[in-house]
Amino acid sequence: MSDTLDLTPTSAVVALDVGGTFVKWLVADHTGVLRKGTSPTHAEAGPDRAFEVVLETVDLALAAVPPSHTAVGVGVAVPGTVDERRGVCVHSENLGWRDLPVARHLREHTDLPVGFGHDVRTGAAAEWQLGAGRGVADQAYVSVGTGLAAALLLDGRPVSSGGYAGEIGHGGALDGEPCACGGRGCAETVASAAAIARRYTAASGATVDGARGVLARALTGDEVARRVWDDAVEVLSALVADLIRVTGVAHVVVGGGLVHAGDALLTPLRERVRARLTVHPAPRIVPAALGGSAGSWGAALLGWRAAGADLASIVAAYADAARRPDEPSPRTSGPSFRQRSAQ
Amino acid sequence: MSDTLDLTPTSAVVALDVGGTFVKWLVADHTGVLRKGTSPTHAEAGPDRAFEVVLETVDLALAAVPPSHTAVGVGVAVPGTVDERRGVCVHSENLGWRDLPVARHLREHTDLPVGFGHDVRTGAAAEWQLGAGRGVADQAYVSVGTGLAAALLLDGRPVSSGGYAGEIGHGGALDGEPCACGGRGCAETVASAAAIARRYTAASGATVDGARGVLARALTGDEVARRVWDDAVEVLSALVADLIRVTGVAHVVVGGGLVHAGDALLTPLRERVRARLTVHPAPRIVPAALGGSAGSWGAALLGWRAAGADLASIVAAYADAARRPDEPSPRTSGPSFRQRSAQ
Repeated sequence: MSDTLDLTPTSAVVALDVGGTFVKWLVADHTGVLRKGTSPTHAEAGPDRAFEVVLETVDLALAAVPPSHTAVGVGVAVPGTVDERRGVCVHSENLGWRDLPVARHLREHTDLPVGFGHDVRTGAAAEWQLGAGRGVADQAYVSVGTGLAAALLLDGRPVSSGGYAGEIGHGGALDGEPCACGGRGCAETVASAAAIARRYTAASGATVDGARGVLARALTGDEVARRVWDDAVEVLSALVADLIRVTGVAHVVVGGGLVHAGDALLTPLRERVRARLTVHPAPRIVPAALGGSAGSWGAALLGWRAAGADLASIVAAYADAARRPDEPSPRTSGPSFRQRSAQ
Repeated sequence: MSDTLDLTPTSAVVALDVGGTFVKWLVADHTGVLRKGTSPTHAEAGPDRAFEVVLETVDLALAAVPPSHTAVGVGVAVPGTVDERRGVCVHSENLGWRDLPVARHLREHTDLPVGFGHDVRTGAAAEWQLGAGRGVADQAYVSVGTGLAAALLLDGRPVSSGGYAGEIGHGGALDGEPCACGGRGCAETVASAAAIARRYTAASGATVDGARGVLARALTGDEVARRVWDDAVEVLSALVADLIRVTGVAHVVVGGGLVHAGDALLTPLRERVRARLTVHPAPRIVPAALGGSAGSWGAALLGWRAAGADLASIVAAYADAARRPDEPSPRTSGPSFRQRSAQ
């Protein structure tokens, strides 16, 4: 791997954002996205099958590199406890992986340099470089989706601590509802998007279209929905206040599926976080700008870095492209990623 | 200020660890301490008087530099919310300071390069470089004394966030006992050494010789003392678990006055922190090695750095000297700092 790659307009990277349900992939050159798609992860078929899907998706994405271009690197982001330095997925509840050397396997499979990251930290890095955190040296990114986790940027550097930084969704409490992690009363049992839906159904007996459905009912006066939503915001506010007390950051980007709730989430969250802080200044709590694409953008950056490319010029080009998210969000109606036809 | 000072055996720094009750000072050359002492801070006489004491103590320490030596820098650590980068004490409850440009004033007063730090982060830096944290890249230092605060070393770098990192003693809760910070139920109202004594007196009506006295009573079967001690350990365990969940560190050094309780504090603290963690590995929770001298050693390092000295060689020499603390501790009966007579 060279120290700095001579970027040509025909270099491309392949990026994968591996989730419990879908693997999102894209092919990007130095100015933006050329191709993209999703593959079902098939995690229900077991850990080996899920990893096969990852390899198949890399092959698919490499095959989608336009003939005009040459793949120079691969970036991949995976969920769970991830040790970026060793390139290992230490443990992923969703995928059933344990101590899986993902980076090495992908390197051997593709014969390309591989950049490897944690899904939340990779998405956070994209927000920091391209989205709602640009120009802020000390900040946190909190992802509230199926799971709940955070990523930290301190003094301009991402923090990992062997993969355990930001695992705020589990532990801390001593009683409450049993959690998949083996603990009780974990934040994920109350404040994740999945928990909001589950708790509503448990309390009301009614099925509901996810956290989105609970919010819709809360806004139309459903008392059970209101309480479940309120509990989630309360637990989130305690988590965000803890993050701030420990790290001192004054800028918090909220991402993950739940942020699509917009002000119904952010307004009470801001109020309650402020109520919990006494010596810290009131933080800026802002929604993620890249929506569901943050992980893919971040994985592309990982791929470029692994390839030895000069990241600064790519970040500058991507920052323009990324601010036009490909997913509907409450705050934008802009066009999707710039799509280009091959050759 | 030169980039790297040509250290001579006759160079010396003056170091001040400013506390709410005493200013500890020392004069050190590149191998260890030459002179030291303490001055009462007189904080009760107001913020201006407290700062006069700091200036007078610097003069005293400079006058104590042996005629064989030349002072080349000053290091100073102060309590409160401290912005190291700007050299400003943003706010100190104990000293009554607000937005005081301590570094600039000391520079003008002494005409020497001044290194400036937060008392807890400075003591922590000494533990990391010379004491119980040597060789660990990701760790936290928790100081439990009159107040309660933490310092973070992540990826080998201290974290400050404009002075707000590690201010875990205040905020977070929404009810409980009123706190000096304006909040309610802050950890400092239960788990600081001062709170332990105060809560015991409030509950029993009996005056007591500080947290040390409460522990002595708890160990001899005093039920109120046992409960007060237990509450403090419980709150500390929640704080340490929060620290670990947010940052992912697996190494925690406990310092400040309360650590002199030894295993009566550390054994239940370790057990309860572990009970609160589910996805994080059990951390190492170890007592500080430098006792009450950590802040002074750290301030000396700040002084050397400000003077442009090569820190690595000084750290190597100090690490030997510092492991012989000058204060009685449960874990050592070694000699005090090496004292040298001035010719």
